[in-house]
Amino acid sequence: MRLSQLFTKTLRENPKDEESVNAKLLTRGGFISKVMAGVFEYMPLGLSVLNKINNIIREEINAIGGQEIFMSVFQNHGVWAMTDRWNEASGVMYQFKDNTGKDYGLAFTHEEPITVDASRYITSYKDLPKAVYQICNKFRNEPRAKSGLLRGREFMMKDLYSFHATQEDLDDYYEKVATVYMRILERVDVSAVRTFASGGMFSKYSDEFQVLAEVGEDTIYINEKENRAVNKEVYNDEVLSDLNWNKENLVEKRAIEVGNIFKLGTRFSEKLGLNYTDENGDKKPVIMASYGIGPARLMGTIVELHNDKNGIIWPESVAPFKVHLIVLDGKNKEGDKIYDDLKKSGVEVLYDDREDKSAGEKFADADLIGCPLRIVVSEKTLEKDSVEMKKRNEKDAKLAKISQLLDLLNR
Amino acid sequence: MRLSQLFTKTLRENPKDEESVNAKLLTRGGFISKVMAGVFEYMPLGLSVLNKINNIIREEINAIGGQEIFMSVFQNHGVWAMTDRWNEASGVMYQFKDNTGKDYGLAFTHEEPITVDASRYITSYKDLPKAVYQICNKFRNEPRAKSGLLRGREFMMKDLYSFHATQEDLDDYYEKVATVYMRILERVDVSAVRTFASGGMFSKYSDEFQVLAEVGEDTIYINEKENRAVNKEVYNDEVLSDLNWNKENLVEKRAIEVGNIFKLGTRFSEKLGLNYTDENGDKKPVIMASYGIGPARLMGTIVELHNDKNGIIWPESVAPFKVHLIVLDGKNKEGDKIYDDLKKSGVEVLYDDREDKSAGEKFADADLIGCPLRIVVSEKTLEKDSVEMKKRNEKDAKLAKISQLLDLLNR
Repeated sequence: MRLSQLFTKTLRENPKDEESVNAKLLTRGGFISKVMAGVFEYMPLGLSVLNKINNIIREEINAIGGQEIFMSVFQNHGVWAMTDRWNEASGVMYQFKDNTGKDYGLAFTHEEPITVDASRYITSYKDLPKAVYQICNKFRNEPRAKSGLLRGREFMMKDLYSFHATQEDLDDYYEKVATVYMRILERVDVSAVRTFASGGMFSKYSDEFQVLAEVGEDTIYINEKENRAVNKEVYNDEVLSDLNWNKENLVEKRAIEVGNIFKLGTRFSEKLGLNYTDENGDKKPVIMASYGIGPARLMGTIVELHNDKNGIIWPESVAPFKVHLIVLDGKNKEGDKIYDDLKKSGVEVLYDDREDKSAGEKFADADLIGCPLRIVVSEKTLEKDSVEMKKRNEKDAKLAKISQLLDLLNR
Repeated sequence: MRLSQLFTKTLRENPKDEESVNAKLLTRGGFISKVMAGVFEYMPLGLSVLNKINNIIREEINAIGGQEIFMSVFQNHGVWAMTDRWNEASGVMYQFKDNTGKDYGLAFTHEEPITVDASRYITSYKDLPKAVYQICNKFRNEPRAKSGLLRGREFMMKDLYSFHATQEDLDDYYEKVATVYMRILERVDVSAVRTFASGGMFSKYSDEFQVLAEVGEDTIYINEKENRAVNKEVYNDEVLSDLNWNKENLVEKRAIEVGNIFKLGTRFSEKLGLNYTDENGDKKPVIMASYGIGPARLMGTIVELHNDKNGIIWPESVAPFKVHLIVLDGKNKEGDKIYDDLKKSGVEVLYDDREDKSAGEKFADADLIGCPLRIVVSEKTLEKDSVEMKKRNEKDAKLAKISQLLDLLNR
């Protein structure tokens, strides 16, 4: 992509009403654009990052048999009334009537409709287990929404639902998902702690995936030896005794919850009639679990963890482009050639070909946007048939022969 | 994908409250699942088709310089009030207040927010032209929503917006998009007629892309010699004289509108302050156009055009899988081998490995789901080291040597 043609420009001013580092840097870099509190749009650079996060999630969830679907925002009042959640969740679920008096809810999660769907297709033990997931926007009536992508009123979620005949089968799959969640977080360069949390109305505990960060809204108590933690919301003597943990070995930290997985049991299948017939011909409710991870919140978390005073430092796995190529001294003809060669060999390049910007402005934009590798073509480097290469997370630049550039990058 | 593991099953019964062929076949085939009138979810097979349509659109729009973004469902009351459309569009736009009295609108189109975005990044003639698009769900308060994917309350749209310094530049790009729209429709095997329609509040005419079908809600008058048409809504003497068309040469037809493109002029840029500075330093409003094509409606249209009494007949470009492989007579070991070989060589295969289904049931499901090529492995075919191949849109099957299968498919 040529910066001269990119839809966005970097902005000088920080966004109003946003205090968080992620909102400031992502807005100034042209990754996101604000619509209202807690509601953001993804511009080309931002969508590129989001798609990379989503595709890592897809790869990992597909590998454990998840089948991708795409559900609706609009939720059916009648179905949510059957599980009592139309009323119970009315604080977080946007609900309204159209001009004929018909009720609409906006999805903040999808347990109800997926259970209805499953009841259309699952009838026998032979149909189990199953796992389906989607990546789509969710809506949540948040009183406060001032943390950029960390807490949105409209936000992207990956939600996975699994269906089982036995508790053992569910327990096995649940652990598989927990392992895969840790791998996803590792792949996007975010190190998380699996954390015991409230199971809400479903079960004793759920598991959260918490990323240590001062900006986080959660407080957790970490057992560093086991790399596990307990959320403050269930931090009490009963729970600690359950886990056989000693208070004195736990460290209190602030953290961002980027994922949460729940054993739902038969909470939804019983109310919505999702049953299967077992080997003996007996009808039983299907046992369910649900698993959420927030790609948008992850994107914000990555920025909170990976930045310096000049801008974002994207991990290579989710960077909008691998290379930020800058041409100086009007050497656009030479820059164009390198840009074309890199593109042809499959390297993702953001190319600053702008003729009306100074070297200083171009370097500042490269630091702000934060691609992993900066390559500069200038009169000085060309005299040595070279370009200057500098990693975003390192200080020193070095010269590299143009003839060896592709080899270096594909190493 | 193994049918034994697929989340969905084909259903015997037609959906209630749906009269259209597309809703019946897509529901029975397990492509879509209904949430409420005009609101559908995409199950794995349906999402596969939708993604293929979306990717064809992406390829074509990227090729004319469109940059993909992802905007929000929630719309800002203040911005829509500035263009007067908060009130003007209140019949089609879902609008509600949250529990603090804050207004929310759900996007049925995105001219307002994209104009605001553009004003953050476009200031000079050097920043023009630009074109951005997104593929996302839209919401429209439809009094009637009984045509399956043809008319939804929540539906997927591709919307493209372009920004220009001069009318000539806009006119050029508008024609490029019109050409690309015809190519997209050709690639998904839907033949459309470019149709003069009302320009609404924006300009004298807009252009619609109409697909001839009795189930369509539009009436158009076709000039067959020019392969152009006029929508009934602007079918009058003044318009015909404008076009220099003779009433007697026009043929009346029913049609489905799958795309619509508009010259917006400065309608939005003036009200929302999207200006650029020209070469002389003069400030001028940016000239805009918007272009919509509905991937979900296209999916429904394809089914309306391509089906027989047994099910769907997907064009190869959008079929959920290229091959529907069926194993009979318990020859699963042999079937598994062929399935693995096809997958390894990159052929998309839906594999009916179910052991509790009769040949008749399997053939009926293959016809209903509608993949382009059916391959059967049975005792009889294996005796000749062969499989039976039959195209979905042809009657006769033929034997093919297993050793030659990959060559035949990759031809």
